[in-house]
Amino acid sequence: MEELQNAKGTRDFAPEEKIVRERVVQILRETFEEYGYSPLETPILCRYDVLSAKYAGGSEILKETFRLKDQGERELALRYDLTVPLSKFVGINPQLKMPFKRYEIGRVFRDGPLKLGRYREFWQCDVDIVGSPTGMADAEILLLTSAALRKLQLNSYIEVNSRNILEGIMDYAGITGEQRMEAIISLDKIKKIGEEAVRKEMQSKDIAEEAIEKLMNAANLIGKNMEILDKLKKILTSETGKKGIEEIEQILQFLEASQVTNVRFTPSLARGLAYYTGPVFEAFLENSKITSSIAGGGRYDNMIGQFLGGKKEYPATGISFGLDVITEAMKLLQKAEQKTVVEIYVIPIGTPLESMKICEELREATIKCDIDLNKKGISKNLDYANSLGIPYVLFVGENELKARQFKLKNMKEGSEEMLSLEEVKKKFV
Amino acid sequence: MEELQNAKGTRDFAPEEKIVRERVVQILRETFEEYGYSPLETPILCRYDVLSAKYAGGSEILKETFRLKDQGERELALRYDLTVPLSKFVGINPQLKMPFKRYEIGRVFRDGPLKLGRYREFWQCDVDIVGSPTGMADAEILLLTSAALRKLQLNSYIEVNSRNILEGIMDYAGITGEQRMEAIISLDKIKKIGEEAVRKEMQSKDIAEEAIEKLMNAANLIGKNMEILDKLKKILTSETGKKGIEEIEQILQFLEASQVTNVRFTPSLARGLAYYTGPVFEAFLENSKITSSIAGGGRYDNMIGQFLGGKKEYPATGISFGLDVITEAMKLLQKAEQKTVVEIYVIPIGTPLESMKICEELREATIKCDIDLNKKGISKNLDYANSLGIPYVLFVGENELKARQFKLKNMKEGSEEMLSLEEVKKKFV
Repeated sequence: MEELQNAKGTRDFAPEEKIVRERVVQILRETFEEYGYSPLETPILCRYDVLSAKYAGGSEILKETFRLKDQGERELALRYDLTVPLSKFVGINPQLKMPFKRYEIGRVFRDGPLKLGRYREFWQCDVDIVGSPTGMADAEILLLTSAALRKLQLNSYIEVNSRNILEGIMDYAGITGEQRMEAIISLDKIKKIGEEAVRKEMQSKDIAEEAIEKLMNAANLIGKNMEILDKLKKILTSETGKKGIEEIEQILQFLEASQVTNVRFTPSLARGLAYYTGPVFEAFLENSKITSSIAGGGRYDNMIGQFLGGKKEYPATGISFGLDVITEAMKLLQKAEQKTVVEIYVIPIGTPLESMKICEELREATIKCDIDLNKKGISKNLDYANSLGIPYVLFVGENELKARQFKLKNMKEGSEEMLSLEEVKKKFV
Repeated sequence: MEELQNAKGTRDFAPEEKIVRERVVQILRETFEEYGYSPLETPILCRYDVLSAKYAGGSEILKETFRLKDQGERELALRYDLTVPLSKFVGINPQLKMPFKRYEIGRVFRDGPLKLGRYREFWQCDVDIVGSPTGMADAEILLLTSAALRKLQLNSYIEVNSRNILEGIMDYAGITGEQRMEAIISLDKIKKIGEEAVRKEMQSKDIAEEAIEKLMNAANLIGKNMEILDKLKKILTSETGKKGIEEIEQILQFLEASQVTNVRFTPSLARGLAYYTGPVFEAFLENSKITSSIAGGGRYDNMIGQFLGGKKEYPATGISFGLDVITEAMKLLQKAEQKTVVEIYVIPIGTPLESMKICEELREATIKCDIDLNKKGISKNLDYANSLGIPYVLFVGENELKARQFKLKNMKEGSEEMLSLEEVKKKFV
């Protein structure tokens, strides 16, 4: 072994980090299930021909796909997302009842360039509905996202738009051909670089002044969701534009009926133009130093059907939560880092057998309990508990056993109290 | 894409399977944490030089290691277990407080021959203590295993032995050299093939009749744990044998003090002879058609230290739970297969906005709730709920909304009742 280190682009998550990640995953899982999504697990190791099929992730992502062979020289690859595996699962299981609502939380792999916050092995947390073409399905995804972020106690908002709104804006501004995509890409930057910079960028792309004026007029609207929608209704007159208006209107009605208020209709928002066919969503933290999105998704009505040969339609919508960025956000909110799950550390004073039994009783009451296994002295044990940030220590000596009263020490405050085991349990459960 | 299928040796877990797997993982995780073990996550993608280091998994496992390269032509591999990654983590983090108690639940990969129940991508659920040489630590692993299997409601028992007991038995029978390993391997088969077959196998291995007699006398003891121990105490007189007796005695004391009764001292039990240095454990189902072990582990005091260069000792003990076999066992116990997590399916009758809001309220009360997103008719909706095995359906029409009383249908019994939303919530929470 040359050097003891991790492969480039991969990381260990020590307990202090993994505890927070697990909490995030747990809340996401609970939320997904409350919204009626069931868990699916697909393999990491895939056939290369499946991952590289014409309508799978596309040629860009194939460059970043880790490839390998098994002993039988079969061409394999590591999955780079959870959507192609979902499509494959739907294709292999024609008996599936539609709509099929599933979530999958798992690792994906991309052999891409390393940047700050970009890794080669990372997690995706995806929730999707396959087989529903309705705005109600898109609205459900937004309600779910809002609920998940609320449960995570993240002060956040969700931008919503539709690909059809963007296309309608292009129709309105009279932008056609290759300039269309260029204009959409520039528009999407308004929040980040401001209107002036976007105007300049568009000028450099030879977009006519009059068109730029119209784009700004339509895409940079400020106001309440319904106000923006009303303004757009007047100017988006193409079929595509009207379709976009209808999609957003329906979504906003559901959000209003369920009193969800942190969704913002943002006509400039663009996402995955090769992929999304209708509404798109992107969630951000409010007033945070983390400016990248924490979740993103949208409707992709063509992808699964095309991947499966184009014989049948599989309208689909969904969202993906960024575990890394959400974990970072949770850590910023956190008061103290937790290096262990342990709530009580039991120190036996010449009483290993009885102390172990006491541990068993506390654990039976679902208290997370550790015990000195190495016959360390009291002060070394206190050091150990202290360095791991364990909040309470329980001393178990002969006298304590006789009196059935044990000294519980609050490690942070330094205070101590004598308690029966029942009282200890009550304190923690 | 030639064929839409999974890579050889990999599987999808559809919701009906994944729901059970998740329940198992959840119970294991809770138990591990109650015993004071914190979560660790290590990468799947590893440097090949780390996985193939001299004291890592050994040459046998290297043959089954999936290898690949990144774009920078770096030699990588997929992890084949969770122990080498643990050793690596310990080596990279010299500041870790000992004992370090961690669990890791995750996928590992082996490019091996496919047999019934053997896959190339599978999960391991490992819990280990690094940095404790005591029998108390081994006892804790057994208490944890017993608690986990109890919580899983699996009727099961745990066999315990020590490598040193086996060596002591060999000393007692006067078996030396290469015959020693051969004799141990045969002894381990007593439960499976019976004493007579084992005798024959030993004879075919040219083990002397007198030695076979002594082996059977020592290894095939029947009785209570302490009785077996007392008998062995009299005959195992070598240093190694005495050490084994001491290890088992200490473990049995802890188990007795904590009133754990499903652990059986089994002097013939052998496990991972290249690996384990002291106590070994293996758990089985009682009276089940599943005869393979459901968890196995032991003490491995040399492996981590040697892997890290031999400068420091890292005594360690732990156990690994078999997720696949435990899931199979849970499915045998299960009354009905659950194809979805959904508890209530809401059918809007011309009331999509209000129905969605009702769903939101039920979800807020942690009820797993789905809703018709596709404007299907009532009978199609009932078919859908029925085919997924959703237990309850709630109808929401205009009249129900006015009266604030909703019809809840029990899909299994066919019965219906009119309830307020509050009453529905109370029924489920």
